[in-house]
Amino acid sequence: MDRKTNSPVTVIGLGLMGRALAGAFLKAGHPTTVWNRTVSKADQLVAEGARLAPTVGDALKASPLAIICVTDYQAMRELFDTSDIEPDGPMLINLTSGDSTQAREAARWAQQRGARYLDGAIMAIPSAIGTTEAVILHSGPQADFEAHKSTLDALGTVAYLGADHGLASLYDVAGLAMMWSVLNAWLQGTALLRTAGVDAATYAPFAQQIAAGVAGWLPGYAEQIDSGSFPAEVSALETDARAMAHLIEESEAVGVNAELPKLIKAMADRSIAAGHGGEQYPVLIEEFGKPRND
Amino acid sequence: MDRKTNSPVTVIGLGLMGRALAGAFLKAGHPTTVWNRTVSKADQLVAEGARLAPTVGDALKASPLAIICVTDYQAMRELFDTSDIEPDGPMLINLTSGDSTQAREAARWAQQRGARYLDGAIMAIPSAIGTTEAVILHSGPQADFEAHKSTLDALGTVAYLGADHGLASLYDVAGLAMMWSVLNAWLQGTALLRTAGVDAATYAPFAQQIAAGVAGWLPGYAEQIDSGSFPAEVSALETDARAMAHLIEESEAVGVNAELPKLIKAMADRSIAAGHGGEQYPVLIEEFGKPRND
Repeated sequence: MDRKTNSPVTVIGLGLMGRALAGAFLKAGHPTTVWNRTVSKADQLVAEGARLAPTVGDALKASPLAIICVTDYQAMRELFDTSDIEPDGPMLINLTSGDSTQAREAARWAQQRGARYLDGAIMAIPSAIGTTEAVILHSGPQADFEAHKSTLDALGTVAYLGADHGLASLYDVAGLAMMWSVLNAWLQGTALLRTAGVDAATYAPFAQQIAAGVAGWLPGYAEQIDSGSFPAEVSALETDARAMAHLIEESEAVGVNAELPKLIKAMADRSIAAGHGGEQYPVLIEEFGKPRND
Repeated sequence: MDRKTNSPVTVIGLGLMGRALAGAFLKAGHPTTVWNRTVSKADQLVAEGARLAPTVGDALKASPLAIICVTDYQAMRELFDTSDIEPDGPMLINLTSGDSTQAREAARWAQQRGARYLDGAIMAIPSAIGTTEAVILHSGPQADFEAHKSTLDALGTVAYLGADHGLASLYDVAGLAMMWSVLNAWLQGTALLRTAGVDAATYAPFAQQIAAGVAGWLPGYAEQIDSGSFPAEVSALETDARAMAHLIEESEAVGVNAELPKLIKAMADRSIAAGHGGEQYPVLIEEFGKPRND
C-alpha cells in the first residue's frame, strides 16, 4: 500500500479504543497523526509510523479528517475549547461514547464554531477494530460521511444512519438491548434445561435457531407498527399471555430465576388490560413507547 | 399417495390444534381415526376421509400410534382412566400443553398402565401444522420415537430431545422465552428510534442482524458455562454494566419504557456484587439459575 495515495487522518484520544483506531488507519496505509494528553500512549503508534502532534491544534491541521475518541463529551469540549477550530478545518467524527442528547448538543456546539461534525458509535471491542466484525455507526450530514467513507472503511463495517446526529447513539443502545436480551433469554433457557441435566452446549444450537428465526419475523411485524394496526394474524396477545404464565410456573417449579418471565408477562398484561388482548404482539409497542406510570 | 402403505394413526382431541394434526395425517395419506367428546368437531375431518371412533377405547385399538391433544394433562388422565389401555396397545404421544413435572408424572402414569408414552410440545400455530415451519418436540424413549418418526414427519419438523419426558416442555418454554425476548428487545429499540422519527421498518433489519449475530455467539459462550470458567475474553461484566446504565439513561431521557433495561442491569449488578465484575457475561448463569432471594 502506498501511503501517498491514502488520505491523511488524525486520531485524538489514545485510550485502548483510540489506539486501535489509529492502528487500523496505519495498517491501511493512511498517514496518521495522533494526539493524546499523556504522550507516552502514542509510543507504540509512533514506532509503527504515526506522527505525534505537539498540540490539538497541530493535530487538527494535519489532516482533512479528525477522529475523536476521548472519555466523554465533556472531555471533548474542553479539549477543543482550548484549541482553534477553523471553519475550513478538518471534518470531525466523534466516536466518544455518549447519548443522543449529547450528540445533538455537540453537533450544535460544532456548528457554532464553523466545524463540520459527524457523531458515531462503535459496536465493537478494540481488538475487532480493522475487521469486518467491527460495526461503526455514523449520523449527521450524509455528504460529509460519503466524503470520508473510503478512509473510514479502514476501521471495519461502517454504516450511515441519517442526518439526525443522535441516531448513532440510539441505534447503539438499541443494538445493545438486543444483545443482552438474546443472551439473557439464552441464559434463562440454559438454566431451565440444566435442571434436567442438559448442558449448555446441547441447548445452545436450539436457542440460536429460535433467535435467528424470530429475528426474521421483525420486518413483517414492523409493518404492523408503522401502520398502527395489529390484527392477530398469527396469535392473539391473550393467547401468548397464557403461555407466559406457563413459563413463569415452569421456572418457579424447577427453581430458576423468574424475573425475566415475569417482566415479559407484566408488559403483556398491561397491554391486555388496556384492551389489546385480541391483537398481535407488536401492539406492545404502546407499552414500550412510554414510561411506566402505574 | 397410497394409504395402504402408510401407517394408521389415531388423533384424540379435536380442538383447533387436534384438527390440524389429524388433517395433516390425512393429507399425508395416513389412515386416520379420530375421537372427540363433542362429535361434531370431527365432521370436516370425516368428510376428508377420517374415521370417527365411537369410544376412546375403539380409537386406541385402531392404530399403532395415538396422538393426544386435549385441554390439559388432567383431561388426558380422565379420558384414559375410563378406557382400557392394553399393555400392547398403541404408542401414546401426548402433545397436550403442560409443564415438565406433569410430563414426567404422565410418563409414570402410563408406565403403571403398561403403555408406551412419549411427551411432546408443539412450537407452532395450528395453520402451520403440516409444513416444515411447525416444530414438534418429543421426549421419552428414543426407540419409541424412531419407530414412529416416519408417521410424525407428516406434522412438520419433528425433533427428538432425550429420554427425560420433561424435556419437550422445558425446551418449549425456553424457546418461548427467547421468542418474547427478541421481540421485546426489538420493541425497546423501535420505541427508542421512533423518538427520532425512524420508523419500525427502517430499524427492523438492524435489529434482525444484531439478533442473528449474537445468536451465533451462543455455542461459544456455552463452553464457558459447561466449564464453569468465565474469563473476560471479549468484555468484562463491569464494562457491560456501564453500557447498561447508558441504555437506561437514554430510555428515560427520550421518554420510553425502561423496565427491560433496568432488569438487564439489575441482574448484572447482582452478579457484580457477588464478585463477578471481572468475568464475562455468561457468568450470569449463576443468577438465572436460582430464584431471586434478596
